[in-house]
Amino acid sequence: MLDLKTSFIVIVVQILCFEYCLSRFIVRPPISPLASNGTPIPANFSVKYYTQLIDHFNYINTNQFKQRYIISTDHWCDGCPIFYYTGNEGDIFMFANNTGFMWENAKQFRAMNLFLEHRYYGESVPFGKVDKNLTKIGYLSMDQALADFADFIQYIKATIPGAVNSPVVVFGGSYGGMLASAFRLKYPGLSVGAIAASAPILAVQGLTKSCSGFPLVETKDYTEYSANCSQTIKNSWTAIERITGTADGRKWLTNEFKLCKELAAGEGYRVSQWLDTAWANTAMVDYSNAATFLSDLPAYPMREMCKQMTNPGADDRGLLSQVHKAANIYYNYTGHSKCCDLVASTGLVDMTVWGFQSCTDIVLPFCANGKTMFEPFDFDFKAFSDQCFGEYGVRPDPRKAVMLWENRSLRSATNLIFSNGLRDPWSSGGVLNSLSDSVIALTISHGCHHEDLRPAGVNDTQELINVRNQEKQYMKQWIEEHYIKLNYFPNEWLN
Amino acid sequence: MLDLKTSFIVIVVQILCFEYCLSRFIVRPPISPLASNGTPIPANFSVKYYTQLIDHFNYINTNQFKQRYIISTDHWCDGCPIFYYTGNEGDIFMFANNTGFMWENAKQFRAMNLFLEHRYYGESVPFGKVDKNLTKIGYLSMDQALADFADFIQYIKATIPGAVNSPVVVFGGSYGGMLASAFRLKYPGLSVGAIAASAPILAVQGLTKSCSGFPLVETKDYTEYSANCSQTIKNSWTAIERITGTADGRKWLTNEFKLCKELAAGEGYRVSQWLDTAWANTAMVDYSNAATFLSDLPAYPMREMCKQMTNPGADDRGLLSQVHKAANIYYNYTGHSKCCDLVASTGLVDMTVWGFQSCTDIVLPFCANGKTMFEPFDFDFKAFSDQCFGEYGVRPDPRKAVMLWENRSLRSATNLIFSNGLRDPWSSGGVLNSLSDSVIALTISHGCHHEDLRPAGVNDTQELINVRNQEKQYMKQWIEEHYIKLNYFPNEWLN
Repeated sequence: MLDLKTSFIVIVVQILCFEYCLSRFIVRPPISPLASNGTPIPANFSVKYYTQLIDHFNYINTNQFKQRYIISTDHWCDGCPIFYYTGNEGDIFMFANNTGFMWENAKQFRAMNLFLEHRYYGESVPFGKVDKNLTKIGYLSMDQALADFADFIQYIKATIPGAVNSPVVVFGGSYGGMLASAFRLKYPGLSVGAIAASAPILAVQGLTKSCSGFPLVETKDYTEYSANCSQTIKNSWTAIERITGTADGRKWLTNEFKLCKELAAGEGYRVSQWLDTAWANTAMVDYSNAATFLSDLPAYPMREMCKQMTNPGADDRGLLSQVHKAANIYYNYTGHSKCCDLVASTGLVDMTVWGFQSCTDIVLPFCANGKTMFEPFDFDFKAFSDQCFGEYGVRPDPRKAVMLWENRSLRSATNLIFSNGLRDPWSSGGVLNSLSDSVIALTISHGCHHEDLRPAGVNDTQELINVRNQEKQYMKQWIEEHYIKLNYFPNEWLN
Repeated sequence: MLDLKTSFIVIVVQILCFEYCLSRFIVRPPISPLASNGTPIPANFSVKYYTQLIDHFNYINTNQFKQRYIISTDHWCDGCPIFYYTGNEGDIFMFANNTGFMWENAKQFRAMNLFLEHRYYGESVPFGKVDKNLTKIGYLSMDQALADFADFIQYIKATIPGAVNSPVVVFGGSYGGMLASAFRLKYPGLSVGAIAASAPILAVQGLTKSCSGFPLVETKDYTEYSANCSQTIKNSWTAIERITGTADGRKWLTNEFKLCKELAAGEGYRVSQWLDTAWANTAMVDYSNAATFLSDLPAYPMREMCKQMTNPGADDRGLLSQVHKAANIYYNYTGHSKCCDLVASTGLVDMTVWGFQSCTDIVLPFCANGKTMFEPFDFDFKAFSDQCFGEYGVRPDPRKAVMLWENRSLRSATNLIFSNGLRDPWSSGGVLNSLSDSVIALTISHGCHHEDLRPAGVNDTQELINVRNQEKQYMKQWIEEHYIKLNYFPNEWLN
């Protein structure tokens, strides 16, 4: 049993961070401090700061903050397209470094590349750091963030000579993809189309059909490598309870896992969280190429993990020994960590900030039914709401997300692509079927989390290549429709 | 020449109130205190109050206010349509009383009728009355108002048994029509379509092609009755200057106009404003039937006015005598006023509140070129902006309106009708050509300000009747498409 202090943590389960953590029974995702920013940007670029309104919806409040952006005009010409990434919950470099698709196509499309950092993340924090009493976090909402994106692109078009007629194509992955789709819905005149990659808009409270979606896909993924693999994970949960329940067991585990700090009584849940994060994040990033997105990982890291988890019938210590070796592939593939810190920092994401978003706009209910490799648990909205109120003084309001993404609203959009890799657990909340000729679903059966936006790699599947090509075809079409309406084509366009 | 104090008034010209006043050189439109609320609602209805969030975009701010609404369910059945009026700048009864189209069609459509009052008007004022120092007016914006409409309709659908599947058709006239169109654009999932009557969305700064549009239509209207009529008005402006420039002339005018208070030196502009309002408002409401919308008026009040203005060659006193008799038709057709108050109250509109909107979201530039019946004047955006800053501490930001209603955004809408009477001066800023199969313009060549939304009258033109029938056809189509998608038809629907 967990004590009162930690039972909060169990509830905050639902506070879920896309790129870094699962909220199931995790608060602080122990991401490896070695996780890099990914592939460096393969172009000349500048980092600049835009003076942005803190409140877009109150004309009396003229407070401002500095919002960071990355701009690259290597291939751009007057009137040529702008590729615009709607930054999500983290340092903007994380997304600029991991969205090779935009960089690799800038030349062919003669595109300017723009990445705007999301308010309250990275260096774009109004009032400086979010303070303990949270009075200043009120200006964090998806509506304000979308208004930032709208305001900023207008600024760019108004101030960069030659940009006024440029068609804007919007990109975003994960929560950034949710934003890209919302931007298309809310500000249809400011872009010609959007690619919303791995955007789990149908995972939000009020639209989700099953809160077990994520762990079900995760379980399927591990089971596809081998049934023994997922079964080993499944059997490990009670083994952890038994082992961490005795002083002897904790001592053994501290040694086996090479923990930086000896495991204390009542801290067994930290081990579970640490493993859970590894399984979830690896399911998201089980890419066919080596990558450094959430961690430094080889190609198909889950395959490497499953090579370590072959004997679900082992005894408790045998089970934990296997899961430790497997999780270590996620946390320490490079071997740089000398000891294992179960509560390492979340790196580039401020979890207080994401927690607030999870408690307001982006409520993502999580549970596990009996068909997953996890211990079953329910989602209790009331308890979640109470927890949010205790922590932030707010209660979740899922109506806004429902209003935005429910079927009638979504069908009214135009030039919007939802792409999903079906091995990505987030695809359980993705749009997997086209809603119209103009709201298109593209799926990659063997793909992972916004894999189409990643840089091309030697191991890319033909299916992934095809989806990227389809996306390029749509982008070209949106852009040319724009030029035809303007009766204007830049001389350099696709020459 | 006007003194410094009144030169402000000349600049605030641009602060324009749709239903009550022209801003040209007017601040306080001297609407007759006798102006009634129009035709009383021809149905059973309740007046209720919804507890609304003051700030929809800040989760930390949970302050609320009471927002008034009118609801009528005389003809409604479970799952049957909801007609929803997005209230504009005034007391909600003014619009409920003058939107006979909704009441008259409720029976055939088995519709519930809902009218939500716009925040900061009527009885729906956050923090009580807007105070002098304006600190509390910051929550007045079109974004907040639209969020009110979105929030409220969700509340209705969630709380009235049988309403959850009801298709919602949105209605609005004038600024209310601008809101109806914006609601369709911003919250497409919350309604099945909208009728935006006489919505001058293309009159806003950044989209308008000519700031002279309004007075040009006005001039055409008066000239169509007779060239002498508009010429008499045209000649009167300098005559007013000459007559009010002498003590003798002011005495004569005080007597001739039966002013409640003797005209003082430097107050000649009040006479011009008083007349200007009469000409403008009558051009808006020159309906074919007697009406009590802005004032108690006979059928075709402009025709009656022009019967009084036949001699543009008269001397100064002769000119003023004619325009006074004509304007009196607007101000005192019923003969109830014993004396003429040039600075009477604006009645149901708080001009401070509308002034703030004119200085923020809804910037409507006004000017008159040499082809109108007015003294030519220019629009100076800089001076206007400075004036707004002085008065409210805000500067206009036309970008939001442009973003919302520019062509690319507007074309992305669906199931949206823009109707315009071409004799309405506001039609100069209306959408007069369809933009797609789904964004439809309907025009009534002999129609006035949102005449299609008015109750049917014995003198209705065949053209007006046809437009109303077209609107009903579209509404039926939108509603049935909704039922088809739901695979659900209420038993009572159009039986």
